[in-house]
Formats: sequence, structure tokens, C-alpha cells
Amino acid sequence: MVSEDLKSKIDNYLLNYFSYKEGYNKIIYDAMSYSLNVGGKRIRPILLLLTYKMYKEDIDAAMPFAAALEMIHTYSLIHDDLPAMDNDDLRRGKPTNHKVFGEAIAILAGDGLLNEAMTLMLKSSKRFGENGVDAALEISRSSGVEGMIGGQVVDIINENKKITLDELKYMHLKKTGELIKTSILAGAILGNAPKKDIDILEKFGYNLGLVFQIKDDILDVTSTTDILGKKIKSDEANNKTNFISKFGLDFCIEECERLTKESIELLDNLTKKSENLKELAMLLLKRKM
Amino acid sequence: MVSEDLKSKIDNYLLNYFSYKEGYNKIIYDAMSYSLNVGGKRIRPILLLLTYKMYKEDIDAAMPFAAALEMIHTYSLIHDDLPAMDNDDLRRGKPTNHKVFGEAIAILAGDGLLNEAMTLMLKSSKRFGENGVDAALEISRSSGVEGMIGGQVVDIINENKKITLDELKYMHLKKTGELIKTSILAGAILGNAPKKDIDILEKFGYNLGLVFQIKDDILDVTSTTDILGKKIKSDEANNKTNFISKFGLDFCIEECERLTKESIELLDNLTKKSENLKELAMLLLKRKM
Repeated sequence: MVSEDLKSKIDNYLLNYFSYKEGYNKIIYDAMSYSLNVGGKRIRPILLLLTYKMYKEDIDAAMPFAAALEMIHTYSLIHDDLPAMDNDDLRRGKPTNHKVFGEAIAILAGDGLLNEAMTLMLKSSKRFGENGVDAALEISRSSGVEGMIGGQVVDIINENKKITLDELKYMHLKKTGELIKTSILAGAILGNAPKKDIDILEKFGYNLGLVFQIKDDILDVTSTTDILGKKIKSDEANNKTNFISKFGLDFCIEECERLTKESIELLDNLTKKSENLKELAMLLLKRKM
Repeated sequence: MVSEDLKSKIDNYLLNYFSYKEGYNKIIYDAMSYSLNVGGKRIRPILLLLTYKMYKEDIDAAMPFAAALEMIHTYSLIHDDLPAMDNDDLRRGKPTNHKVFGEAIAILAGDGLLNEAMTLMLKSSKRFGENGVDAALEISRSSGVEGMIGGQVVDIINENKKITLDELKYMHLKKTGELIKTSILAGAILGNAPKKDIDILEKFGYNLGLVFQIKDDILDVTSTTDILGKKIKSDEANNKTNFISKFGLDFCIEECERLTKESIELLDNLTKKSENLKELAMLLLKRKM
């Protein structure tokens, strides 16, 4: 399956990325590598590469942008898990970064991964001309205070509070949805996709991001810590409003199916064949972790 | 004086940068603005703009890169001050970010400023063509794990330890020197300075960064909390090795003077007049805070 091959390529790229580093600052490489290689699903980089692959052949050229997405995602998890934030000890079935390296290094490892993501994209942007800068900008914008960080802020300040549906949607779309959508858009931009396709993929990405977050909420109440690799029922424990507490489990499951079906149909209007992307959307709907 | 005019321009740009923001995530803008406008000396952006101004007239075009440098410097201070790091309550004479907004928001405000710096540079890079990407890359590289973050890592892991002179130099050059040097280099790159000038400015920037850090160590033992706006004798309190504890106060004062004089002489070989940059080097030597 194409997305499994891509996952191997991404795993391999990230595993070797920092491996040769030695020096007074070695521990920061160990800390960044630890979280980067602790077993993520690589969904964001896979989405970027799958989308890129519809328009261009040379996957390796886009790999730095795919890796940058995973670095940004990983940094956000390291910081989210800190005692001052969600205070989680377990992530992907392993101790969280600060449990292994201490809080100070975990903060710096997060900073370092965000910074490295930007450096890597800038280093790799020239071969794509203005598209390289546009893709990097899309990724930077969507991970920032009007994107992922903004969602995390709203999440943090609303612990132990009832929030409105509008605020819940804002939080989820920003915290998770934005970067999922951007993974697809950045792939399309790097691939020099036509405007018509980019508009369709933006809508597709928006839906996919929404499904992804609702599915996270579903798994939080239906899965086990063993399978999920992190605490379950964490929203309930932290008194957080989520889609399940607003709409109930059954509606959420149906909504995920409806949105995925609708999204897949959108792809029929692309100028390129999109079987791999459709298959991945179905995998994300059915995922167990 | 030119650098005072530039400081006003920078202060004004940063003061208005986030001011119009409203929304569920408003608190992150408040937190970022707070630290960004709490009264920094703006040395890095002034250095960028002064250098740029030797080669080009349109200061406003380079302002986003100057502002990005200040955002990166500010984020690093917010994270350095956190309880898990240096645990400082006071910065620039005001309560530190986490004392005002809490630890979680302070972590996110730091992340947000680093991210915004990158977004801003990417947004502003196109008018400079490849020089825009090169300047952003220089700034990103020098603030990362092989630059500023790397220096901070070595600082953190060596609390309460005696370190070698090599390690002390590494720490200081990375933690502070690297970004000072980059401020000058990025200005030269954006200004499309000739290779010969860039080489001279790199050496000048290296020296200036070193002087800046030694001067910080000098002020840490000779100034007062009132003037400095932060705890004095903090290195002694945290059992940190610095240039004073290695070489004594007198040698450090002499070394700062010698390096500054040597640096100013280097500038005579530039293809452009550099009076403003020389004047700033003297101001940095004589600064009281």
C-alpha cells in the first residue's frame, strides 16, 4: 500500500536526521530524536507526500517539508505534555519527553524541533522557487497563533469550563484540523497543482481535519490506554468539553462517516487520479489509535 | 543619533504588531505583546537595520526581518525565565511572562513568537528574491540547536558544575553571540552587500557578540537590580561558570575594550561608510544595562 511505503520512507528519514550529532549540546539531539522516533503515525507527512505525488514524481524533493510537518507536530506534543500544560506521563506508549529528559530539556527540545522545521524548509525551498516559500509559509502560518498554537491556547484556558459549540469548533479546527489541512495544501503547492485542484483539496483537507479530531474524541472514550498509547478519558478527567460530551457518541460516529464520504466524493473533481488519498481518508476513518 | 531613531521605529512597529487582535485566543496576543513591549534595547533589530542601511535606503522593507529577530530574542527570554529553566521573576524591571500569564500561556507565547517570526520573514521574503530566503535561513539557523538553543542547553546542563574554557566559550558564543552576529549578517544579505563586505561583517559580528556576552557577565557583578532590571549576581547564585569567574573582572573589562577597538578597525575595509555601526559598537561597550 502506498501510504505504508511512504511511512517507511518518512520513518527512515527522521531516524537518520539527527543521528550523526555529537558535541556539548548532544542531549538536545537525543531529546528531539527520542520524541520524533517514538512511533508516530506520520499522518501529516504522508498526506503531504501523497498529495505531492499526484502532481510530481520526485518524492525526495518534498521530503524535507514532510519531515518539517512531523517535527512541528512532535514539538507541539512535547510542549502539550509538560506539567504546566496537560501534565501527561505517557505518549505513544512511552514516557513523555520531560519524564525522560527533564522539563528544561523538554521545553528546549520542543523549541529546537519547531526551529529545525523552519530551517529545513528554508534550506529546501529554493528548488521549488516561489512555491517553496509559499508552502513553508502555509505550514508556518497554520502552526502559529492563528492555527495550532491558537487552538491549544483555547484548550488550555477552558479547562474546567463549559464552552460554546462555536468555541469548541474553533479549538478543534485550529488545534488539529489546521495542520492536517495544511499538509494536503502544502503538498499541492509544492506539486504546482492547478488553482481548481487546490480549492478542492482545501475543502477536502478541512473535512479530513474535522473527522480526525472527532475521531480522536471517539477513541478517547472507546479505546484503551494499551491500544491508544496514552491516557484514555483524558478530556473527562480534565473536565474538557469535546464533541462527544456535546453531541453523544452515536452522532459523532455517524458524522465522521458522513464527512469522510462527502470528502472522498469531492476528490472526483480533481484533474488527477486520487485513489491513494481516498484510501487514506478511509484508513483515518477506521483507525484504532 | 541614528540608532535612537531606528529604536523608535522598531518600538513603534512592534507595539502595533499584534494590537488589533481579538478572538478566543486573545490572551496569547496579550502575552506575546507584553514581553515584546516590556522595554528591550532592540540591539539585534538595530544592528540589522544599521547594516542594511549601509547598502539600501528603504529601511521599511527590512523591518519585518528586524522585528523577527526581536521576536526570537523575546521568545528565548520568556522560555529562559520559566520555573523549569532559570526561574526568574523579574525581567527588564517587570514581572516575567509566566508571573503575569501563568506557565502554560508563557510556554505558548514563546512558541507563538518563534513561529510568528518565521511566518513574518516568509511573508516578507519575496521582494528580496533569494536574498530573502538566505537571510531568513541565516536567522533560523543561528537561533536553532546549533546556535542560540544549543547555547542555552549547555548553560542549563552545566548549572552547579565547573566547565572548561572551551565549553564556556561555546556556550556564550552560541547563546548570545550567534544571534548578534546574524543580525549584522542578515542585514548585509538583505542589502545585497558584496562578498568582501560580508566576510568583514561576519568577523565584526563575531567579536561584537563576544563583547556583548562578556559585558553581560561584567554587568551581572558590577550593576544593580534597579539599573539592570533583573537579578544581579545570578550566575554566582546559580553556581554558573562565566568569564568573570574564569578570568577576573579587570581582564574582562580590558578584553572588551581590546575586542571593540579591533572590531571597529575592521570596518575601515568595508566598501561603504560605517560610522553608525562604529558608534553602536562603542555604545555597546559602554552600556550600563
